[in-house]
Amino acid sequence: MIARVSKVLYDGEIDLSYVKSTASLCRLLADDPSELPNLTGRWNKVAIISDGSGVPGIGDIGPLPTLPYVEKKSVIYKKLAGIDAFPLVLNPQSLDEMVKTIQALAPSFGAINLEAINESRCLSIRNRLMEEGGLPVFQDNPDGIPIVCLAALLNSLKLVGKKLGEVGIVLSGTEAEAMPMVDFLSANGAADIIVCDRSGTIHKGRAGPTNWVKENLAKKTNPRQVKGSPAKALAGADVFISLSGPPVLNKELLSSMAPDPICFYLTDCTPDLFSRPSLDTGTPIIATTCPVLPNHLTGCLVFPGIIRGALDARASLINLPMKIAASEALASMVPDELLDHEMVLPQVLTPGLVPHMASRVAKAAEASGVSDAVNE
Amino acid sequence: MIARVSKVLYDGEIDLSYVKSTASLCRLLADDPSELPNLTGRWNKVAIISDGSGVPGIGDIGPLPTLPYVEKKSVIYKKLAGIDAFPLVLNPQSLDEMVKTIQALAPSFGAINLEAINESRCLSIRNRLMEEGGLPVFQDNPDGIPIVCLAALLNSLKLVGKKLGEVGIVLSGTEAEAMPMVDFLSANGAADIIVCDRSGTIHKGRAGPTNWVKENLAKKTNPRQVKGSPAKALAGADVFISLSGPPVLNKELLSSMAPDPICFYLTDCTPDLFSRPSLDTGTPIIATTCPVLPNHLTGCLVFPGIIRGALDARASLINLPMKIAASEALASMVPDELLDHEMVLPQVLTPGLVPHMASRVAKAAEASGVSDAVNE
Repeated sequence: MIARVSKVLYDGEIDLSYVKSTASLCRLLADDPSELPNLTGRWNKVAIISDGSGVPGIGDIGPLPTLPYVEKKSVIYKKLAGIDAFPLVLNPQSLDEMVKTIQALAPSFGAINLEAINESRCLSIRNRLMEEGGLPVFQDNPDGIPIVCLAALLNSLKLVGKKLGEVGIVLSGTEAEAMPMVDFLSANGAADIIVCDRSGTIHKGRAGPTNWVKENLAKKTNPRQVKGSPAKALAGADVFISLSGPPVLNKELLSSMAPDPICFYLTDCTPDLFSRPSLDTGTPIIATTCPVLPNHLTGCLVFPGIIRGALDARASLINLPMKIAASEALASMVPDELLDHEMVLPQVLTPGLVPHMASRVAKAAEASGVSDAVNE
Repeated sequence: MIARVSKVLYDGEIDLSYVKSTASLCRLLADDPSELPNLTGRWNKVAIISDGSGVPGIGDIGPLPTLPYVEKKSVIYKKLAGIDAFPLVLNPQSLDEMVKTIQALAPSFGAINLEAINESRCLSIRNRLMEEGGLPVFQDNPDGIPIVCLAALLNSLKLVGKKLGEVGIVLSGTEAEAMPMVDFLSANGAADIIVCDRSGTIHKGRAGPTNWVKENLAKKTNPRQVKGSPAKALAGADVFISLSGPPVLNKELLSSMAPDPICFYLTDCTPDLFSRPSLDTGTPIIATTCPVLPNHLTGCLVFPGIIRGALDARASLINLPMKIAASEALASMVPDELLDHEMVLPQVLTPGLVPHMASRVAKAAEASGVSDAVNE
């Protein structure tokens, strides 16, 4: 059974007389660590860690001015999932030092949330922490956003009667987070993904400047080896996901896609996101990062629920089955009868979202053998 | 003016709609750091840092079983001083790595409280952090306990009509914390301190095993160069402070001291602490670490108030004037008309203790030029 951890000591409400006997609690825990979940608040605590090197929309401003950003996140964690999330901004360190600092902090927390760190740096830190293990590590861009996109995609495809394994997906942008998005969609059965940058489609043996991300993408995507401009890739495609760079598709490009096109814009909010054209080929399903538009693609739909589930399961990591469970739980929060072009995702404050996702994620952790709470 | 910092974002009570504009707050702070105290919770936050290498009464049990100990302290901080104190237990690291980890965390906190770390290791970490600067560092044994002892001593001496500069003080125990106790009492005017270990009094040129603590003590104490057993040092002394080791004084030794002897036992609670003999030379004033006896020598009398004051002043360190102010504030909480052999210290929950000490400490920080809040 997955038990919700108790917070015996860290709720700030306990009687002071209680705390006198902590030495005996410490002694007990030193002898029998299995009591840790019952006698400490560890599995209700998350560290939100930043060095302020990549505040979204701003850039590298260092740790102190980044405080409101991570404090904001801690408020959301508490409000939506009851989690005590500690905003920790770190002085600038080398990548290696930062990994060590986070690993040193590990015993205090049930999970680590990386935040507002320079993108490629953050991905390296996340990957190092995940490889060396011991604690669930989560980051909105490579972890949360693909989960939201899959949920939105599953609901969109249901609405237009298509299947993930059969649709053509075009992804624009080759930043570090393109890789986790491709990996996650592929792991869920997407078979025809083409990634584009400004020079056009990524394919094997492409000339011009390259890097490890593009080389990896060339290996894993574009099974039909489509070569040429993004427009060429878009012709007949079912799904367009913009990670960065290219502007919102115009009516002409949208019309060149397969009927009932699906477009997810993960770029900054810009006025052209508000244009939602209707086409001869069907009303496109459009999801954006803009909070006042329908279908809001935001990490807030994911992190409270998936981390609550990981903590409840006392998971040792956040693995693929847990992420898939989070995505499916998110998608299932829009009932079939409400499913619509303007509602392929629930709202952040939809009642029941966090506990439903948490329960599904915890069960996935248990089923995949990464839960410490299995035998209780 | 010393302004109490606001906690705009981290009180968990704020409306979610508020948090949408944090990017603009971050931008503002990057341009104008002077707004940090108003727009972040930094100066209401303390890190309680331990590696579990020295849990009082237990020893080295590592980070995880130490959680209740540091969580307890965070509850006391919140209850008594309204401070958000984060319990952080760290994986074992070298001393140098631990200093670096704490320094990396510095931007998140207004002060650092070291806790349950092996004593000599802790003192080294504290001293390194203080030398390299940038953040108030506090630890009960070397910082809080001397402050409590001075307060108890000032009130005891007032009661028996003696002066700190004129009394003979015998200190037993040569652990690492003997040094800060000697330094603090000397800085306040104590002129005749003799320190003893099992081999007898510490004096210049003493034969036998030695170390840097004893060598330092030999330089700074025992102006009359008393040589011999602890009993010899005690004969005629006014004050006895036991840091460790030797048992509670028996009636014979107490009677050998000057009239109206004053004894502070900082050792673990043992049954013989309960014997409070009356002598022909006057009822001794006895203070102990035992919470159910009168005159409870506990760090809880100090850390909430001194840290609240340091945070309110946004102090860059905790200096001698701030410690003296804390001690005097603590002593002044026992009104003259209540002063008694069984009441030379207030209780932890005495109303007004924390705000009174905080205000005195913040004023001392301001007067000594270590407050960032002076010009507001």
